[in-house]
Amino acid sequence: MGQGVVISDSLVQDYCCVRSQSEWLVRSLSPEDMMVQSCPEASPAKWHLAHTTWFFETFLLREASPDYRPFHPDFLWLFNSYYNAVSDQPEKKLRAVFSRPSLAEILAYRRHVDDAMAGLLHRGLPPEMEQRVVLGLHHEQQHQELLLTDIKHAFWTNPLRPAYLDLPFEQPLSPSENLDWRQYEGGVLEIGHRGSTFCFDNELPRHPVYLQPFQLASRPVSCGEYLAFMNDGGYERPELWLSEGWQTVQSHGWRSPLYWYREEGTEEWQIFTLRGSFPFSVLEHTAVCHVSYFEADAYARWSGRRLPTEAEWEVAAAEKPVCGNLLEQNLLHPAGVSGQMFGDVWEWTVSAYLGYPGFHALPGALGEYNGKFMANQMVLRGGSCVTPQTHIRASYRNFFPTATRWQFSGIRLAS
Amino acid sequence: MGQGVVISDSLVQDYCCVRSQSEWLVRSLSPEDMMVQSCPEASPAKWHLAHTTWFFETFLLREASPDYRPFHPDFLWLFNSYYNAVSDQPEKKLRAVFSRPSLAEILAYRRHVDDAMAGLLHRGLPPEMEQRVVLGLHHEQQHQELLLTDIKHAFWTNPLRPAYLDLPFEQPLSPSENLDWRQYEGGVLEIGHRGSTFCFDNELPRHPVYLQPFQLASRPVSCGEYLAFMNDGGYERPELWLSEGWQTVQSHGWRSPLYWYREEGTEEWQIFTLRGSFPFSVLEHTAVCHVSYFEADAYARWSGRRLPTEAEWEVAAAEKPVCGNLLEQNLLHPAGVSGQMFGDVWEWTVSAYLGYPGFHALPGALGEYNGKFMANQMVLRGGSCVTPQTHIRASYRNFFPTATRWQFSGIRLAS
Amino acid sequence: MGQGVVISDSLVQDYCCVRSQSEWLVRSLSPEDMMVQSCPEASPAKWHLAHTTWFFETFLLREASPDYRPFHPDFLWLFNSYYNAVSDQPEKKLRAVFSRPSLAEILAYRRHVDDAMAGLLHRGLPPEMEQRVVLGLHHEQQHQELLLTDIKHAFWTNPLRPAYLDLPFEQPLSPSENLDWRQYEGGVLEIGHRGSTFCFDNELPRHPVYLQPFQLASRPVSCGEYLAFMNDGGYERPELWLSEGWQTVQSHGWRSPLYWYREEGTEEWQIFTLRGSFPFSVLEHTAVCHVSYFEADAYARWSGRRLPTEAEWEVAAAEKPVCGNLLEQNLLHPAGVSGQMFGDVWEWTVSAYLGYPGFHALPGALGEYNGKFMANQMVLRGGSCVTPQTHIRASYRNFFPTATRWQFSGIRLAS
Amino acid sequence: MGQGVVISDSLVQDYCCVRSQSEWLVRSLSPEDMMVQSCPEASPAKWHLAHTTWFFETFLLREASPDYRPFHPDFLWLFNSYYNAVSDQPEKKLRAVFSRPSLAEILAYRRHVDDAMAGLLHRGLPPEMEQRVVLGLHHEQQHQELLLTDIKHAFWTNPLRPAYLDLPFEQPLSPSENLDWRQYEGGVLEIGHRGSTFCFDNELPRHPVYLQPFQLASRPVSCGEYLAFMNDGGYERPELWLSEGWQTVQSHGWRSPLYWYREEGTEEWQIFTLRGSFPFSVLEHTAVCHVSYFEADAYARWSGRRLPTEAEWEVAAAEKPVCGNLLEQNLLHPAGVSGQMFGDVWEWTVSAYLGYPGFHALPGALGEYNGKFMANQMVLRGGSCVTPQTHIRASYRNFFPTATRWQFSGIRLAS
Repeated sequence: MGQGVVISDSLVQDYCCVRSQSEWLVRSLSPEDMMVQSCPEASPAKWHLAHTTWFFETFLLREASPDYRPFHPDFLWLFNSYYNAVSDQPEKKLRAVFSRPSLAEILAYRRHVDDAMAGLLHRGLPPEMEQRVVLGLHHEQQHQELLLTDIKHAFWTNPLRPAYLDLPFEQPLSPSENLDWRQYEGGVLEIGHRGSTFCFDNELPRHPVYLQPFQLASRPVSCGEYLAFMNDGGYERPELWLSEGWQTVQSHGWRSPLYWYREEGTEEWQIFTLRGSFPFSVLEHTAVCHVSYFEADAYARWSGRRLPTEAEWEVAAAEKPVCGNLLEQNLLHPAGVSGQMFGDVWEWTVSAYLGYPGFHALPGALGEYNGKFMANQMVLRGGSCVTPQTHIRASYRNFFPTATRWQFSGIRLAS
Repeated sequence: MGQGVVISDSLVQDYCCVRSQSEWLVRSLSPEDMMVQSCPEASPAKWHLAHTTWFFETFLLREASPDYRPFHPDFLWLFNSYYNAVSDQPEKKLRAVFSRPSLAEILAYRRHVDDAMAGLLHRGLPPEMEQRVVLGLHHEQQHQELLLTDIKHAFWTNPLRPAYLDLPFEQPLSPSENLDWRQYEGGVLEIGHRGSTFCFDNELPRHPVYLQPFQLASRPVSCGEYLAFMNDGGYERPELWLSEGWQTVQSHGWRSPLYWYREEGTEEWQIFTLRGSFPFSVLEHTAVCHVSYFEADAYARWSGRRLPTEAEWEVAAAEKPVCGNLLEQNLLHPAGVSGQMFGDVWEWTVSAYLGYPGFHALPGALGEYNGKFMANQMVLRGGSCVTPQTHIRASYRNFFPTATRWQFSGIRLAS
Repeated sequence: MGQGVVISDSLVQDYCCVRSQSEWLVRSLSPEDMMVQSCPEASPAKWHLAHTTWFFETFLLREASPDYRPFHPDFLWLFNSYYNAVSDQPEKKLRAVFSRPSLAEILAYRRHVDDAMAGLLHRGLPPEMEQRVVLGLHHEQQHQELLLTDIKHAFWTNPLRPAYLDLPFEQPLSPSENLDWRQYEGGVLEIGHRGSTFCFDNELPRHPVYLQPFQLASRPVSCGEYLAFMNDGGYERPELWLSEGWQTVQSHGWRSPLYWYREEGTEEWQIFTLRGSFPFSVLEHTAVCHVSYFEADAYARWSGRRLPTEAEWEVAAAEKPVCGNLLEQNLLHPAGVSGQMFGDVWEWTVSAYLGYPGFHALPGALGEYNGKFMANQMVLRGGSCVTPQTHIRASYRNFFPTATRWQFSGIRLAS
Repeated sequence: MGQGVVISDSLVQDYCCVRSQSEWLVRSLSPEDMMVQSCPEASPAKWHLAHTTWFFETFLLREASPDYRPFHPDFLWLFNSYYNAVSDQPEKKLRAVFSRPSLAEILAYRRHVDDAMAGLLHRGLPPEMEQRVVLGLHHEQQHQELLLTDIKHAFWTNPLRPAYLDLPFEQPLSPSENLDWRQYEGGVLEIGHRGSTFCFDNELPRHPVYLQPFQLASRPVSCGEYLAFMNDGGYERPELWLSEGWQTVQSHGWRSPLYWYREEGTEEWQIFTLRGSFPFSVLEHTAVCHVSYFEADAYARWSGRRLPTEAEWEVAAAEKPVCGNLLEQNLLHPAGVSGQMFGDVWEWTVSAYLGYPGFHALPGALGEYNGKFMANQMVLRGGSCVTPQTHIRASYRNFFPTATRWQFSGIRLAS
């Protein structure tokens, strides 16, 4: 944030913290690293820095600050991700060619917008606009998580496979505890966000659902357990898979989670992490991650259990404190300790991502934030080891298509 | 059915009726017509005749009739659709090259299997196997519907656009009645099949759901109403569409439902039906059909309403008799009379096709029938103008991907 | 040809012979067989019968017969292959959905056009129009060859692999004779069609070329010789292949010529022919066929020789009589006897298909016949076992893209 | 080149000049710019710097310098382009993710190899190895040209469209002179490289060809002349195009050369160059460039002329000095002055890229340099405004596929 800004209240404080967190995350990356876009799901780190800034410029400064002078006339559409009501957008794959504006210019853009935001925040804002600032901060936190997810894939794709953080794990990591089954009562229960704190539109309205009694595992499935599935022919037996999942396995040649590999001529699996590659034995007891919905579903079928619904998950998590292996731990890889519902891995649920009864998207362009993706995606819950702690909550609904693997996505069983 | 077979009981009677119905449906088709496969979703009519026969041969005769002599050693895998537990299968697109076996051979295959089935049915079967016969008949009814759906597409694709049934509609068809809104109470209600009559595994178990009070339209959306959406820029306004829907509209160039077209230089829409092409004015008051989930969703958003959930639909339909414009009416095109829940068009719901709580697929190969498609499909309810009357019921769950249009799929609004 | 037509001269005679030959070739095919289009290169047999008729209707009857009544108003564009100057055309892949018009209608179309052509021919035609009739007959002969090539692929694609001609080869076929090398002088020589008999526009003008002394093999490469290449790692060694050829091998998984296969668990190759499948040993000494340019080139490199240029080939063939294993032999498979330049297999040359110096395409729509394909194709020479004897000559230039294998294409070495 | 190296002879001098030229070309590019790979044909500038260095390391230092210590163990395969005999290679599209090694490391790599090469050159080399050094320098010059071609495309793809060289053209550029026709005698003439100076293997052996008398235009086609073709419906008339060319125009939506565009709502064409965008009027009289073979061929047909063969071109150029608008002029855009055969634009010929009679590729891995691309490419001659002057000669054969447009490729007519 610009020099000389006096921090006067908690929103300014939050703004400062979140914005500086983004820049802290790229501390070890070169401008070249921040250019890479290694798969269609990912964006370059530089783009994340720019787009999150664009959000404040577009939805706060251009609307609420009449004397605001945009940093660059083209940035309005250049860093628009998918808001058709704002402007056209460059094709997503073009983000990899944005050598100009340079990283230095993007950082200057951040300064420019931060200075203007500081002014705006100090002058005071109507509550609706304050809510937009909060939304902008949560938006930026989502992109912080994506930035790490994307840079992991970028470094994996690079034949040299560099580490994002050059700090090995203590070995061995978190011996997995016994898997217990927690019992939950059924009946008419409520899910959805409660109270006046921030949430996304897709967490509302809170509403009753009918649940039958259910059990949830005390921790996510571990790498060791998942290996047993693999060794039992998990990737070769069509009867374990959804039809589309089996086609996906065949056409992509999947034989393990993403980021697992074997050196030529060796038997032991290696697992690539944000801290570099490690032998399976080091990570055996950590939660398996980077599995698709199809793999989560096949594993559950193989184990004789099932995935939870999002309502079951939320009911169970509502009792728990929001703590766990989250971004702030800086482990940057799932551990998988028993008893926690948050952190480690996003947990696939068997619930399709759809609107709650009575759902209404935000009005205007911001209504495009969540609502327009309600088709062909499954809900994931709980946050991962790269999710900021202040970003996650029991009612939070993440969502991805069924073949997605580049996310830190894992498996918690139900029955 | 083979000559000289004495019909002795109702299962034999049902078998006879359903099997002869399939052959009646192809009465106007040439062997050449029955070769055509005009889109990846479709199969040639000849294949439908063979595959439905394969079902009885594979799951009844081979298993329960020790002295059964298969008609042809290769048919076991040649006419397998997708049952991995039975055998490999030819690629679906290969069905178009099956000039051999000829139609005459397929009809002989039907005779052969019908004769053997008659013997089996007369000797009597254990209840579990009787249930399989019933399943086989429902399976064949599904393919009767597909056969008509597919031949419609085949004839549409043919540049000459021939009619399947050369019998024009009386004009104008079914002036659409006022659209009323029926009010339904909410609360904890039950859905899923009840009783001991036949149902598919995916309709079970019956279970409670919590519903809020809702309203359902008394009839489906008409072509005239849908045209108003089109004329209001329905296909040009991204804000009306799900993100993936908008991409689909763009990439496919959709500007109307499937089977609507305009002659060069004219303004009025023409609509192609199983009875040939008609001007829009003739069909204006009939239910719009051949729309995808994306179009149904966009129309609902435009109208300020929404699509129903499958639970809402089922609760409303459970009170109604199973009658309407179904296959037996031989209209072969939706009418859209008010007050009926069955027939006319399959109605898209906002519910993803997933297993009910406690769902278990049938054991063995037949478990592949429904369960393995539970990803990335939406539920449709109610049957269409080409669904056999004895095939449909309130708890029946049909399912298709969100971009599917070759089905007789339409829109009933909720709010 | 229509009843009551008096045959009065040799053009009428030729017309009759060629037209009846087409129908004779489909004598063993059902209307269903004649619907199949099993690869993008191929067309259904029925379409070949219609399109060759369309040629006479479009370029003769519509132009030179003022009172001619077209058989069907839509056929002008329906059976147009690629003549943009005549009309639009249906997409090629749509030919597989033409169940209507039926085969019976196509045969009636042939009768209708044959009757009108008989009238036209009897009234007499200006020389330019007589030349068009001759062109139309050569056009039909090309499609006779394609019809057989396409039906071979159709029956290969059919899982039952039926035979077109159910008449086994005498075994063993043509023990391959020693391969001799024929020596040819170089110097300034002429190639291109000479004299006043029919040729295609692409065979003109006759022109001088400078050739260095060369040698040509006395016969094509045999299956046995090709197997030695395969067994020497021919399909696994990138150094033997053109770059694009190696990519093609990798992406298509080629490991042998088209139509070679091995039954599961056996070692010996089987070869599928128009007469059904035979073990390798039966065909070992016949000319290898259904190889792409890439394979011909790789084989030549492996053998330490090279492919001939089209000029070398033509100079060598100009001395030879046009006889060999051609369509009339009804063997329908290459033999590969030494000393003949015509028949057996089309021989890939190392010459790109381009216009001769001073080349001019025919005026008008017929200029699209050959000239517009002069890019990214290689010349093949000599005709194959399914080429009519009266269709081939030393100056005849066939051409296909470098990855084409469905043709009866083989290898003659040069050095 | 490393400090303290005494330059003692012309090869060392040439080495120094060429190597430093590469680095001079990237003087205005940031490390981010040098990451961009904006189309499948292109590579990032950084990769060009590395790969050209790899060439010397692999083919000189590793083979001829026993005590050479490779800079990095992975670079042998990391920067291999397509030499299968050396090692596997990363997929070409992966070059865009090489944020590591950084530009600084690549520059250090260049230093390391240059130092070792200096040592090697000072110790003296056998003639065969000296030839390899020369080959390596020509190889680097090819990549210098590609680097500029690729960065032009990268900046074009960037929505901001920056200039590589921020120095406007003097206006107007080179009023095009009258197009004269130069007459050439035919007969048996020789083409191919003559003498002992360097050439690529594909320029040999020199050999006789028979040519008929021909005429060549005195200069390339200008933008203004090409616009007349466009305004005469050039891109809308299938009769002007090769069949595959017409399909390409349709599927890519081509309506002008690459890099031509119109601002929304304006009529005048803009042309993007390495010096930024200019209105058509500024460049009207310069040689049109960035046209594919298909466009060159269609233009020639429209104009009633034809493209030259490569033999015709070479015979005409053999009389001319190697001077013209080449890289050293630093114009970086074609001018098109009459009377010169070299520079401005690569000129499409109607000759397919194939081996000359008696062609033999270099032995070993270096044989992959040119020979394995002899399929489906057309020859271009003469060099362009970004070709180094010491790199081009009359016998030089460049080659690209028929749809290629990102090259500085233009049109010289023949008749």
